[in-house]
Amino acid sequence: MFPRNAWYVACMPDEITDKPLGRQICGEPMVFYRNAEGAVTALEDFCPHRGAPLSLGFVRDGTLVCGYHGLEMGCQGKATGMPGQRVNGFPAIRNFSVIERYGFVWVWPGDAAQADPAKLHHLEWAESSEWAYGGGLYHIRCDYRLMIDNLMDLTHETYVHANSIGQKEIDEAAPKTVAEGDTVRTSRFMENVGAPPFWKMALRGNGLADDVPVDRWQICHFTPPSHVLIEVGVAHAGHGGYHAPADKKASSIVVDFITPETETSIWYFWGMARNFRPNDAELTASIREGQGKIFSEDLEMLERQQENLLRWPERNLLKLNIDAGGVMSRRVIDRLVAQERAAADAGTPAAQVTRVIPVRAAT
Amino acid sequence: MFPRNAWYVACMPDEITDKPLGRQICGEPMVFYRNAEGAVTALEDFCPHRGAPLSLGFVRDGTLVCGYHGLEMGCQGKATGMPGQRVNGFPAIRNFSVIERYGFVWVWPGDAAQADPAKLHHLEWAESSEWAYGGGLYHIRCDYRLMIDNLMDLTHETYVHANSIGQKEIDEAAPKTVAEGDTVRTSRFMENVGAPPFWKMALRGNGLADDVPVDRWQICHFTPPSHVLIEVGVAHAGHGGYHAPADKKASSIVVDFITPETETSIWYFWGMARNFRPNDAELTASIREGQGKIFSEDLEMLERQQENLLRWPERNLLKLNIDAGGVMSRRVIDRLVAQERAAADAGTPAAQVTRVIPVRAAT
Amino acid sequence: MFPRNAWYVACMPDEITDKPLGRQICGEPMVFYRNAEGAVTALEDFCPHRGAPLSLGFVRDGTLVCGYHGLEMGCQGKATGMPGQRVNGFPAIRNFSVIERYGFVWVWPGDAAQADPAKLHHLEWAESSEWAYGGGLYHIRCDYRLMIDNLMDLTHETYVHANSIGQKEIDEAAPKTVAEGDTVRTSRFMENVGAPPFWKMALRGNGLADDVPVDRWQICHFTPPSHVLIEVGVAHAGHGGYHAPADKKASSIVVDFITPETETSIWYFWGMARNFRPNDAELTASIREGQGKIFSEDLEMLERQQENLLRWPERNLLKLNIDAGGVMSRRVIDRLVAQERAAADAGTPAAQVTRVIPVRAAT
Repeated sequence: MFPRNAWYVACMPDEITDKPLGRQICGEPMVFYRNAEGAVTALEDFCPHRGAPLSLGFVRDGTLVCGYHGLEMGCQGKATGMPGQRVNGFPAIRNFSVIERYGFVWVWPGDAAQADPAKLHHLEWAESSEWAYGGGLYHIRCDYRLMIDNLMDLTHETYVHANSIGQKEIDEAAPKTVAEGDTVRTSRFMENVGAPPFWKMALRGNGLADDVPVDRWQICHFTPPSHVLIEVGVAHAGHGGYHAPADKKASSIVVDFITPETETSIWYFWGMARNFRPNDAELTASIREGQGKIFSEDLEMLERQQENLLRWPERNLLKLNIDAGGVMSRRVIDRLVAQERAAADAGTPAAQVTRVIPVRAAT
Repeated sequence: MFPRNAWYVACMPDEITDKPLGRQICGEPMVFYRNAEGAVTALEDFCPHRGAPLSLGFVRDGTLVCGYHGLEMGCQGKATGMPGQRVNGFPAIRNFSVIERYGFVWVWPGDAAQADPAKLHHLEWAESSEWAYGGGLYHIRCDYRLMIDNLMDLTHETYVHANSIGQKEIDEAAPKTVAEGDTVRTSRFMENVGAPPFWKMALRGNGLADDVPVDRWQICHFTPPSHVLIEVGVAHAGHGGYHAPADKKASSIVVDFITPETETSIWYFWGMARNFRPNDAELTASIREGQGKIFSEDLEMLERQQENLLRWPERNLLKLNIDAGGVMSRRVIDRLVAQERAAADAGTPAAQVTRVIPVRAAT
Repeated sequence: MFPRNAWYVACMPDEITDKPLGRQICGEPMVFYRNAEGAVTALEDFCPHRGAPLSLGFVRDGTLVCGYHGLEMGCQGKATGMPGQRVNGFPAIRNFSVIERYGFVWVWPGDAAQADPAKLHHLEWAESSEWAYGGGLYHIRCDYRLMIDNLMDLTHETYVHANSIGQKEIDEAAPKTVAEGDTVRTSRFMENVGAPPFWKMALRGNGLADDVPVDRWQICHFTPPSHVLIEVGVAHAGHGGYHAPADKKASSIVVDFITPETETSIWYFWGMARNFRPNDAELTASIREGQGKIFSEDLEMLERQQENLLRWPERNLLKLNIDAGGVMSRRVIDRLVAQERAAADAGTPAAQVTRVIPVRAAT
């Protein structure tokens, strides 16, 4: 159960090499490659000739060629040729709308006619030279909504990530959640606390003392279909916390693009954008490595939680105030899916009105 | 299909460390840990908050804490706390009755109100300093009744364990099976035969000549729900066999506690209790190693037999007199399960009247 | 969906050692062993006593003995004995007709009463000292008909086997397909082309120059139920191609016996028969190694194609003229299966009239 008329991260550009890339997204097996103009193209991963996956083929001068019998596939999903054969009568396979932007390839698994680039989030940090980004990709066998829950309630850091970013003061600081249109924001502020190991490292990385009390914040932004961007940071205590001047804090944006593969598995694109020492590649690598380790701690929990939910489908998950972020995000998703279904039933495209509230960096 | 109102071995005590232990028993995912008094506690492995397995959590001062968001779970299955949250309204999860005794943790997967410690077998060998015990645990993908069949008909030793405890005289000695209440006993006696390798080792271990003819015996005791204890031994021929004096024989009790995990998989706790040289730890280790190797020979046979039965569900297994032990044991099981079902249908607890005939060591 | 009243390759003789061989063929688990006369025997892999696979047993003086409790099984599927037990009342298990010939063991999974050795292909190359043969076995998770399609349309060589036997001229040469009774033949001829690497090796193996233009041919013969024999070769250009004298060409027969294991998996017996330097064992080994590598390139394509077809069962595969060989072969199969079904419905054995057109070596 996921919105289909929405932009999802399909892959990172460097995953598409001279070999096409096969990846299932929202239940649709897709093949990604670069056409003659260098633009990323996404098609159904199914050769209309004999059903071979086109992703086992190759790209010749920007044309995708089936690796079984050499059918040449056009960018729109119409076969364009095959040595010695007539294939123009072949039915087309599906073409999916794609945008390459912000260092990601985005795909629209639903109705291509509704795929509007203007509906893609604006991500300021991804276009500014004052920001650096590092990240990675995990495959996890869980419903994408379990990962949204996970990220909209950072209470779990105290338990799952006890040795890196967790601290008991997270539990003690009540989060506040608000919904605005289709977005949801959960905020949590902790004052005058010790910095946990990851943030000590970040303070040092920004040339700041790591052994003094800090004010810490976490502001989680959900935007449909399944993106969670989290402003996180610490400032030396008493300088304004989130609003402290740049030379008193270390802050960043945790980037989470959660792409359903199937109903119970995801491609999880995680990363961190920061606006201090953006040209320090070594720092980027070290943050990336640290984040990768921390985020890998969620995998077993999410997969085992999923197994438990499949075993007891009749049990309702209980909701505390810390769950408000996930609960409200799921409401947005439910509404969008209902709209799509209603539109499909009416035979007309859904008047999708996803309002996107971009995350602005706190500078 | 297994009785639920019965004591099953859940684990060995040293499997529960400072980490809780997750294990599925009779189709119920359970978590085991020690509470503040050091008593083993068993609960459903499902956090009522978000469905995470509690076995991924930790134990703090005898309290089980969920590893996802810190819910604290009481020994009876009621949530007792969570930092900054009210959880006392949460519905309880199931609590399972547990006894730690005889070097095992026993669990009662059914109705806790009926869990009577007096219904646990008395195992004399497990409490006496004159006996030593060594054993292990195997996970096998087969119906637990196939393992009962296996152990109640030791004819298979000649074939599956040809190089250790098998010998052709087993085939030639007709077994005798009797049922008494809910227990079944199958006996087989062989006179004036050579000792197979495992028993030569045991004779030497007991300081006896291993190259003389022996009388050998196997007395298999089934008690519900799925325990098979087997008195086995050899005595120098002509001294009374089973009744020979201690200095003329090597004997022991093969211990088999078979705990269903699912309908087609088991936790198989195997071991051997002996009453000679009980303080010789090296001998215990060497017997344990030998038995572990021998018993591992059954795994492939049982799993492949299970696959065959699933493939041909309409075929009836045929019954020879050697199968009487398994056949009668299954009748006991069928009767107990029928009683439980009748009681469930009537809305009243089954008047379970399991008569336990303890295995007395033959001294 | 496969004909059952037909000879399939079950195994190579050396796969049956002193241990029986278990193998599923056309959905039937079978056990193969040599009886007291040394003749290969095939039975259901199911002991009528307790359902154990007989293939886990052993052979004693030509009698198959169950490895669980020692039941002795007669060649016709009737239990003949068991130490201390009466088993002659046991129902028989199925016996399958077997022929050992041409270096293979052939089995008839259907009605044994119809199993006629005369219906087995005649394979001249397998009986002549002027021919050498080398081959192997792959297990592939695909419908056997996908492998027939693969072999009846060698266009795929250009793509799947680009570095060994593929060349663009294959695409350019239109194949010609004809059906004769129950057989299908697809031929393709290329004149005055370069020899691809595998054929250069074969030319050198036959003492011929490898750097001159050649005429190349591929003549694929389908015979039911699922055998594809392919005459392949190259001759120095201008000497008559397929009909060129032996000292101007290197030619061979690609041997493909495709045995369904289940509806979506196969045992693929592949090999090559050649009539030059038949006694050169080193050459046989080197051709076998090369062919094994080349044929392994098809595995991923076939298995992934199968996955795609299972995902989109409603999509029809499209048919070009290059597919005529597979299309016509499937028609033969459909007709045979329909005949078997009609005969089964009528309660009478199908008047199976499989006409076999043997492949005669082109000498």
